[in-house]
Amino acid sequence: MVTEDEAMRRAVALAARGLGTTSPNPVVGCILLGPDGAVVGEGFHAYAGGPHAEIVALAQAGERARGGTCVVTLEPCNHTGRTGPCAEALVNAGVRRVVIAVDDPTPVAAGGAATLRAAGIEVVTGVRREAAEAGNIAWLTAVRRGRPYVTWKFAATLDGRSAAADGTSQWISAAESRADVHVLRGTVDAIVAGVGTVLADDPQLTVRDLRDGTLAIKQPLRVVVDSFGRTPENARVRDAAAPTWIVTAAAAGAGPDGRVDLTALLIALFARGVRNVLLEGGPTLAGGFLAAGLIDRVVGYVAPKLLGDGRAALVDAGIGTIADAVELDFTDITRIGGDLRFTATLRPKEK
Amino acid sequence: MVTEDEAMRRAVALAARGLGTTSPNPVVGCILLGPDGAVVGEGFHAYAGGPHAEIVALAQAGERARGGTCVVTLEPCNHTGRTGPCAEALVNAGVRRVVIAVDDPTPVAAGGAATLRAAGIEVVTGVRREAAEAGNIAWLTAVRRGRPYVTWKFAATLDGRSAAADGTSQWISAAESRADVHVLRGTVDAIVAGVGTVLADDPQLTVRDLRDGTLAIKQPLRVVVDSFGRTPENARVRDAAAPTWIVTAAAAGAGPDGRVDLTALLIALFARGVRNVLLEGGPTLAGGFLAAGLIDRVVGYVAPKLLGDGRAALVDAGIGTIADAVELDFTDITRIGGDLRFTATLRPKEK
Repeated sequence: MVTEDEAMRRAVALAARGLGTTSPNPVVGCILLGPDGAVVGEGFHAYAGGPHAEIVALAQAGERARGGTCVVTLEPCNHTGRTGPCAEALVNAGVRRVVIAVDDPTPVAAGGAATLRAAGIEVVTGVRREAAEAGNIAWLTAVRRGRPYVTWKFAATLDGRSAAADGTSQWISAAESRADVHVLRGTVDAIVAGVGTVLADDPQLTVRDLRDGTLAIKQPLRVVVDSFGRTPENARVRDAAAPTWIVTAAAAGAGPDGRVDLTALLIALFARGVRNVLLEGGPTLAGGFLAAGLIDRVVGYVAPKLLGDGRAALVDAGIGTIADAVELDFTDITRIGGDLRFTATLRPKEK
Repeated sequence: MVTEDEAMRRAVALAARGLGTTSPNPVVGCILLGPDGAVVGEGFHAYAGGPHAEIVALAQAGERARGGTCVVTLEPCNHTGRTGPCAEALVNAGVRRVVIAVDDPTPVAAGGAATLRAAGIEVVTGVRREAAEAGNIAWLTAVRRGRPYVTWKFAATLDGRSAAADGTSQWISAAESRADVHVLRGTVDAIVAGVGTVLADDPQLTVRDLRDGTLAIKQPLRVVVDSFGRTPENARVRDAAAPTWIVTAAAAGAGPDGRVDLTALLIALFARGVRNVLLEGGPTLAGGFLAAGLIDRVVGYVAPKLLGDGRAALVDAGIGTIADAVELDFTDITRIGGDLRFTATLRPKEK
């Protein structure tokens, strides 16, 4: 026997297992309780095109779902995409009650709750909404805004330097932090970097096991913001390890400065199914994203080192005075190896 | 009944209550256990010229100390300063056993353990040495090096800016962080700032209750590093709230660049009884201290804000490449209000 609240907690945890492989779909977790409150099925949405969480759970429960309760992190879909509508499947399975954390904000998939209610099923929404929203924040933000959720990641010293005066930056962070970046990359659909970073460091921008260099099976799209087409032919980012998009101003549209219009870039990425972007620098590109209001979250790896000179992690953001500083809230502070990792989300602007 | 180990834990905690008022003396805590292991007296050294911890505890215990055990964070002194030698007092009180955390490193006060042993008292050293060293780190470092322990404090945004492009910096930190700085100031003997900070912000550099502006009873010495005597006559740092030393190159000695020799300054402060210094900026002065190897600890208040432009917290430290970065270890990471406060100590240089 588990309570519906406890079942939802578990469904949120299950949902997270899909992070990095479900886009353009959300992550979803589902627990089915039999009429007596026992868990009879569970599932999560593992990859786009694969079965939805409810379908996985229903297949596991079989007849035991009849008269039972479906606890699911997102409103069951109402449309036939690559798979049939989940609302219909729940009706057919004879579920008596559906407990939902978050309503589906997409016009095409929404309406599941109404379909369920029309079939006489009791529907409750908002259970553990906050936790489920947090677990799906990238997808929810993306579909609400029509552009991917953007996490800006950087590494710096205690005094805010991302490179020394001579340009060296390998390695500011501890090995544990560098491995953690690969975990972070594994949760996104695209990694974005500027051509300056490509020219300076020649990064591969893949998800790897740093112990032996093994590539992860699923690789995010590599995106190089390269307004004037300066990415070398032999740059590692062009190798066969992952798909790559070298974005020129000619291809993506230019802003007033002749450089890639970053908002247009994000809209184009959204159209390609990208919901979750990791922005890895450099400082000018990060400044451009911040100035355009396109950063949602910041993950910083702070190494216990001092330089007293060298490049800042963020430049040219167009902020001139302290009262105009962009405000965030820390959501997590963790020690990784000898480093400190913070996560902070941008505070919604007052209207 | 308490164990000697538990008594030492308590003695270390007691000792900390003297922080900020004992210089040039160390902080010391003492617990006296009777022959049956019960606590019969306790004390800490509260202020220079006042009774030592052992004397306070002995006065409380009276005859109950006879045949008992003295648990003390620092080797009892062997010399007659403003008070009589503690070793002799312990012998006279009939204590049977003395448990010490840290040996006294000063030539004038050391020898207490030998005196005790010569009187037939059993002496054990090194119990909870690490915790006691940490609690007394400023004094221990100062007397071992002949110059005060220096904590550099700064406030910055996530991207390492201590002021915006237009020079504004009030307030980068949350109110809770600013109040915490006054707690930190209350633990030191001197607050050091550069004349640039005085000219820019006109700080008072006192220990205050920020709610009502009340001054603390004991104020650290205010030290302005002002190589060429530019501190205005009406600067707040010259007010009557606390003693002040405006340090010119002529007075303190000049380095090759004609500016105040910072090592000479610290030696002069040590001679004045200062053991624990809080360095509050600005960035050039902090860079000078770091370049001279004079910073022991860093306390940073990091506000969840982004600027993308503006002044760094630390400049001109003479470090050009990442391999030469000064390395530290985080000793504490705490959330204060909406900010993050880290404490990090400089890693001893390899020899």
